[in-house]
Amino acid sequence: MSTPGRAASVYSEVQTSRLKVSLPLPSVLKDSLKVVDGPPSSAAGNPEEIAKLFPNLFGQPSAMIVPGDSSGALPSNQSLKIGVVLSGGQAPGGHNVICGIFDYLQERTKGSTLYGFRGGPAGIMNCKYVELTTDFIYPYRNQGGFDMICSGRDKIETPEQFNQAQETAKKLNLDGLVVIGGDDSNTNACLLAENFRGKNLKTRVIGCPKTIDGDLKCKEVPTSFGFDTACKVYAEMIGNVMTDARSTGKYYHFVRLMGRAASHITLECALETHPNITIIGEEVAAKKETLKIVTDYITDIICKRAENGFNYGVVLIPEGLIDFIPEVQQLIAELNEILAHDGVDEGGNWKKKLRSQSQQLFEFLPQAIQEQLLLERDPHGNVQVAKIETEKMLIQMVETELENRRKQGLYNKEFQGQSHFFGYEGRCGLPSNFDSNYCYALGFAAGALLHSGKTGLISSVGNLGAPVEKWTVGGTALTSLMDVERRHGKFKPVIKKAMVELEGAPFKKFESMREDWALKNQYVSPGPLQFIGKTANEINHTLMLELGAQA
Amino acid sequence: MSTPGRAASVYSEVQTSRLKVSLPLPSVLKDSLKVVDGPPSSAAGNPEEIAKLFPNLFGQPSAMIVPGDSSGALPSNQSLKIGVVLSGGQAPGGHNVICGIFDYLQERTKGSTLYGFRGGPAGIMNCKYVELTTDFIYPYRNQGGFDMICSGRDKIETPEQFNQAQETAKKLNLDGLVVIGGDDSNTNACLLAENFRGKNLKTRVIGCPKTIDGDLKCKEVPTSFGFDTACKVYAEMIGNVMTDARSTGKYYHFVRLMGRAASHITLECALETHPNITIIGEEVAAKKETLKIVTDYITDIICKRAENGFNYGVVLIPEGLIDFIPEVQQLIAELNEILAHDGVDEGGNWKKKLRSQSQQLFEFLPQAIQEQLLLERDPHGNVQVAKIETEKMLIQMVETELENRRKQGLYNKEFQGQSHFFGYEGRCGLPSNFDSNYCYALGFAAGALLHSGKTGLISSVGNLGAPVEKWTVGGTALTSLMDVERRHGKFKPVIKKAMVELEGAPFKKFESMREDWALKNQYVSPGPLQFIGKTANEINHTLMLELGAQA
Repeated sequence: MSTPGRAASVYSEVQTSRLKVSLPLPSVLKDSLKVVDGPPSSAAGNPEEIAKLFPNLFGQPSAMIVPGDSSGALPSNQSLKIGVVLSGGQAPGGHNVICGIFDYLQERTKGSTLYGFRGGPAGIMNCKYVELTTDFIYPYRNQGGFDMICSGRDKIETPEQFNQAQETAKKLNLDGLVVIGGDDSNTNACLLAENFRGKNLKTRVIGCPKTIDGDLKCKEVPTSFGFDTACKVYAEMIGNVMTDARSTGKYYHFVRLMGRAASHITLECALETHPNITIIGEEVAAKKETLKIVTDYITDIICKRAENGFNYGVVLIPEGLIDFIPEVQQLIAELNEILAHDGVDEGGNWKKKLRSQSQQLFEFLPQAIQEQLLLERDPHGNVQVAKIETEKMLIQMVETELENRRKQGLYNKEFQGQSHFFGYEGRCGLPSNFDSNYCYALGFAAGALLHSGKTGLISSVGNLGAPVEKWTVGGTALTSLMDVERRHGKFKPVIKKAMVELEGAPFKKFESMREDWALKNQYVSPGPLQFIGKTANEINHTLMLELGAQA
Repeated sequence: MSTPGRAASVYSEVQTSRLKVSLPLPSVLKDSLKVVDGPPSSAAGNPEEIAKLFPNLFGQPSAMIVPGDSSGALPSNQSLKIGVVLSGGQAPGGHNVICGIFDYLQERTKGSTLYGFRGGPAGIMNCKYVELTTDFIYPYRNQGGFDMICSGRDKIETPEQFNQAQETAKKLNLDGLVVIGGDDSNTNACLLAENFRGKNLKTRVIGCPKTIDGDLKCKEVPTSFGFDTACKVYAEMIGNVMTDARSTGKYYHFVRLMGRAASHITLECALETHPNITIIGEEVAAKKETLKIVTDYITDIICKRAENGFNYGVVLIPEGLIDFIPEVQQLIAELNEILAHDGVDEGGNWKKKLRSQSQQLFEFLPQAIQEQLLLERDPHGNVQVAKIETEKMLIQMVETELENRRKQGLYNKEFQGQSHFFGYEGRCGLPSNFDSNYCYALGFAAGALLHSGKTGLISSVGNLGAPVEKWTVGGTALTSLMDVERRHGKFKPVIKKAMVELEGAPFKKFESMREDWALKNQYVSPGPLQFIGKTANEINHTLMLELGAQA
């Protein structure tokens, strides 16, 4: 994949003004610093198995960065060779992590070199890289996207692939590598750190928490970067369609939001905008709700609102909703089985092979979705769940249910659903002030951690509710975030995705408000993300509530 | 339709900060002012017919507002009763027009009353209104949407409806009425002005130019309000998906944009963001292009880009595209005929009733679109063109054409299209500084025009490239914008929609750049609309280029 770089790009005025903004650093990173170890660490679960999987790294302490003094400050006469890689989907702020690493090396380790591996982890394996220079990096400062070096979804997993990575590390004489990615990529980073350490390679590996989905977080890593910006971009759009709904008085806007695994984005957008109806996948799963229950919940509110004179509204749905519904999973499994063996016949006799619950569910689905389930298959012949437009499916199911109620005399309005999917628009936005600053600190910290010889840590910036200068900085042992899952009879290390906690502060807040939001119209329009002015530095509700609950 | 008003609303920080912003006025509106007539006017076309249709108003001069002096300044001891109505689709800034009228009346005509007719022109006919007060209006200042009094799409057309409007005018003792709307609504406003004048009613009528589509404009009315904001909201999203395309290197984002009649929005967004491919409906129509030609044009660029190593891109399509393609119109007309009479048979024999060109086109269409054409009909049994998702249709047609070329060895990449429709998100955004200021001036001017006893004018604010204080203000005779169309054997007055001029400066600029944009990647990411900072007051490219060409 060839990229022209941004040298030839035309920049908008906002892009240009963002380029020129200088990034604040936490106080602790401004002057001479040193890295101090904490107590030994354990694992998030199954420490014995994690210890076996990471014999060299398990138990290592997390680290704090503190002001340096004559005794322990990091030496400035050391020049390093560092690599950086972007892994997985884009998230606003990725470029600033790289800027942070670069600036650390420039300021603190004269003569250092930063290599950017191109196109994700494959770039490490194939040794495809670019040497990052001041001129090369400059146009990407505070800009969205991952196009400085691009990303990829390959993994370094097999012994051959680890060998390829070693070859590259040796060839470039790498002192360190920064892996910017989500839960999988950080697990991978830790395996790489373990592997390098086991082979006595000098190359250290530090991770950085990236994902707009917000599902990589823990006490030490309060949020993943990109979540803040993506939610603010989506919330702008949601606020706008809310104003539309209220002004026309005749539309129900059904908005599907990115987030296949966890519903953090949907929850955050709800907290920012106060929609009438919000479906949180984790709650649906916990309550073992069926599609019929979800449909009835939405329909009930629509009917109650109609009684109150409101024939409009806004509904938020997480992209991964149907993955949370057990009966849908069951139906799809059975369909895959039938499609793989006998196929379906025109007369519909194949339906008799479905269990009765699945048969009922299938008949309950709108015709277009039935067809999609039977026709669209991936190369392995499986049903493509990801292609189902959940928001359109729900609109059709609600329509059908409203018709039933109309016949029973329970509803007498016109229902007009409008479907939206807000996805790509958000993951490549210009990073918010928070993401810009947070990422710069994450990158700067990663530089310091590598400089001090640390490996197997994830760059950790905390106290995020305070002004930037008071942020705390350190690195958390990646093994301490890990648990194991059994796959193909073997234990595999995983950083478990942080799902929406039904007992957590953000969900509790939402839960306490949603009945009001359902029937009254307390819409909030956040408006376009601002970079200047008193509101420009506000952090998202999820993070604020979680920090508040911790305090 | 009941609206709770915004009194109970929770406001975001950006909304609150916008509420508090004080609106600048053109110098000429700041102090004592008077209204000066220009020369007699004519019509945009067929002046004899317009003269017959508007015997009382035809030929009346347009007016300029100039600084008042002792001789001609408008009296401040006169109290007025004025009505205001929002007509048609929402456009950012509508609330500020109302604020402008209100503030004019408060400041210049003590004791005046402003009535807001609810739900559009129907509110006039049914005398449904609210008396607008400082407290009522305050929460809507600089806010998006039309929910202060809501809008509607009814028209005042029949003699009975004109009588209803007269009844309301008499009942409320109205001195004037401001109609905020698009081309149709302003035509209607002029008919109402003519009707009131003919009946010797004292009620004057002034129009205001509203539509995000940007197709109500002329020399005296350089732009309609809402266009600036809507395009900036869409351009933010387009810039983001461009960054996405460049970062992933594997998607073609097909973006359909609002604008059923004219392609101004698509053209403006292209000028703001530099997409690889932009389809302008007016050009397709002028060149009598077929769907095949449009598909080939897109496919050619995709293939050329593939040769250059770029397997990604962004394509902009106006919502009204297929309305511009004569062969599609022909096919739909024939389909409506067939569906109305014999219907379609399973065996496909019905296709033989299509003319051969229509038959070819039908076979060329993707199956999903074929089905949509046959299945989705409006209550009159007609094909629902508006429901066709043009961006998805084009993706499928491009896929098919790329497969053909692959077989011929002319293309060997993977094509992944992603479809987007940006519509509702834009028409209800928080108004840009330009739309906020422009609307406030339009409303203030409407107040002054009514105060001076004018009727049948459209509020006109010019010199928009200059700072607000240097803007010119006046009213243009609505009859001077009119032509006639023959409908059902009668002449009907119309303000012709301003289409994209292929010889106009905005299209010329686009035409001179599009080859570069197609093959190089000169994407611009405008970023979220900003309210503060040096870029916050910039006007859109279309307006800037048109003003430049005039100068």
